[in-house]
Amino acid sequence: MTAFKQLDTPLVLIDLDKVESNLKAAQDAADRAGIALRPHIKTHKLPRFAHRQVALGAVGITVQKLGEAEVMADAGLDDLLLTFNIVGEKKRARLKALHDRVTIRVVADSAETVAGLAETFADPHRPLGVFVECDTGMGRCGVQSGNEALALARLIGTAPGLAFAGLMTYPAAKKYREAAKWLSDAKALFDQASIPVPVITTGGTPDIWHMSEAGIATEYRPGTYIYMDRSQVAAGAATFEQCALTVLATVVSRPTEGRAIIDAGSKTLTSDLLGLEGYGHVLDYPEAKIVGLSEEHGTLDVSGCRDKPKVGDVVRIVPNHCCPVSNLFDTVTLVRGDEVVEVVEVAARGRVD
Amino acid sequence: MTAFKQLDTPLVLIDLDKVESNLKAAQDAADRAGIALRPHIKTHKLPRFAHRQVALGAVGITVQKLGEAEVMADAGLDDLLLTFNIVGEKKRARLKALHDRVTIRVVADSAETVAGLAETFADPHRPLGVFVECDTGMGRCGVQSGNEALALARLIGTAPGLAFAGLMTYPAAKKYREAAKWLSDAKALFDQASIPVPVITTGGTPDIWHMSEAGIATEYRPGTYIYMDRSQVAAGAATFEQCALTVLATVVSRPTEGRAIIDAGSKTLTSDLLGLEGYGHVLDYPEAKIVGLSEEHGTLDVSGCRDKPKVGDVVRIVPNHCCPVSNLFDTVTLVRGDEVVEVVEVAARGRVD
Repeated sequence: MTAFKQLDTPLVLIDLDKVESNLKAAQDAADRAGIALRPHIKTHKLPRFAHRQVALGAVGITVQKLGEAEVMADAGLDDLLLTFNIVGEKKRARLKALHDRVTIRVVADSAETVAGLAETFADPHRPLGVFVECDTGMGRCGVQSGNEALALARLIGTAPGLAFAGLMTYPAAKKYREAAKWLSDAKALFDQASIPVPVITTGGTPDIWHMSEAGIATEYRPGTYIYMDRSQVAAGAATFEQCALTVLATVVSRPTEGRAIIDAGSKTLTSDLLGLEGYGHVLDYPEAKIVGLSEEHGTLDVSGCRDKPKVGDVVRIVPNHCCPVSNLFDTVTLVRGDEVVEVVEVAARGRVD
Repeated sequence: MTAFKQLDTPLVLIDLDKVESNLKAAQDAADRAGIALRPHIKTHKLPRFAHRQVALGAVGITVQKLGEAEVMADAGLDDLLLTFNIVGEKKRARLKALHDRVTIRVVADSAETVAGLAETFADPHRPLGVFVECDTGMGRCGVQSGNEALALARLIGTAPGLAFAGLMTYPAAKKYREAAKWLSDAKALFDQASIPVPVITTGGTPDIWHMSEAGIATEYRPGTYIYMDRSQVAAGAATFEQCALTVLATVVSRPTEGRAIIDAGSKTLTSDLLGLEGYGHVLDYPEAKIVGLSEEHGTLDVSGCRDKPKVGDVVRIVPNHCCPVSNLFDTVTLVRGDEVVEVVEVAARGRVD
């Protein structure tokens, strides 16, 4: 890791070759499966990568918050799916302003959300596309049954300024078969009622290589796949060699034979465990365990390492969850292998509203 | 919570009256205990509050990273303790630039860190003050024994451009008695060796109301006390009424009778559990449990609530850990009770290097 010795740690490195390879692999898989790809930009928050995803064949992008949509629209992305229930006058006004300049569609899972949207969007010549969000097993947002989905789609259909866009779900990891069945059963109800379902959109990087088994879904929205991370390696969706985002950190203390302290804590790696043990994978010392994090310190158990890190050594870590990591940094450092290419601002960082 | 209905969620509210009351209570306790207060600004990252802490009687401030020190020095704070092992040429050059314009002292727990500092700081007329960091039970950085502390202090003493400043520890929560004994035993060794220990500095909000039992410590460095949070309430150091930082969030979905989804997830509340169950305390619905977080969604179990929140309702949450929450937001909204006073930039946000 001496190649990056001159950099001030902690910082986030993004390997451009790995990004390109990850993007292409997913687009290829989508093409083979005959499914449209609509990548989620919450992971990278960088317009340049969103443009690259579209250039490679994505039909548009997915965003999670209005703030992300605004940044991406400003950067010239013009086909956005906002997979969030937009509630409240202020937010609807921002959505309206976006709808006036780009193609943006949203989701709803309740009559309240639909009623709010119907209040703000009233132009039958330029209706807002609204998907019905379906809870196919994740236990988060979403209508609970196909009948509820149908009822909500009908409600959307009664609003002159809204148009039913289809069904949207974020399935629980490894539950893509259950999600496919849920959507298929729901679609049957729509068919019986002669209500067209223009798009059925699903997602999730953990099951990205099962896109062809996504049943009747017509669109897939993966996010993490651009960078990959330790949780995706654990899920079998990637190898550590494919992980494009790494955290560069310095060993600042070796208080005991078995302990090393690095200058990356929860304000760098986040406390996300995602069911894993430890807070990341140290590429240079794979036997090391990141056993604890304070805000600015990471505590490593290095007792299992044959060669142990020394004070001043620089290490590279694959975090458990890459998405919130890039959200903590104002900039990321783009590299190709051992060469620094450019430092770029994370344009949509912190746009949580 | 209708008072804040017009605000766009999620956002961070800081109640100025509670801040003032928390700051005064700690300064009063320090004065009564005859111990100097050196608040840690990692919690608020706001120069205005640092200045207020000094105006109320603090001897200076504590920072955790060089980036925080730079922001605070730029804002006119001129007595800083940087409680981190500064390692690497680039970081030492930044430390030197700070030392040239303000009073800044650092810590070291190894011969390597001291050797690096001795290389950069060589002026005997303006030596850099260096504390020996002691591991009194936290299991993070720090020398492991009084004898190691003495040896490292001697090493610091041999460097013309360094001056031994004293002993520093961050004790484990609720282990202040063990920490006091550790420091007392170490001090005895220094006394035997006739090496003066100018300052003995300890800290931690969980035990802030035991400052008078901090033994031979001459200085206390609390951070969280300015805002307080759910973990401090659990530790018995505060009540929910004293918590100055709250997260304002909107209920965006009520998919089932027992479930509510808010627009604040791990990118707002963080995944910090700190040994607690759930990810925060909902002030308006104290029986609600924040059982899960995705990046932008919070999942509440509201089955225990008599009155249940509706889609569009705005709620206020005391997070488990306030420090990383204010680090996620570009701005915080200062309020007094129900009145918005000002929106301010979190100046040292994300300064992790």
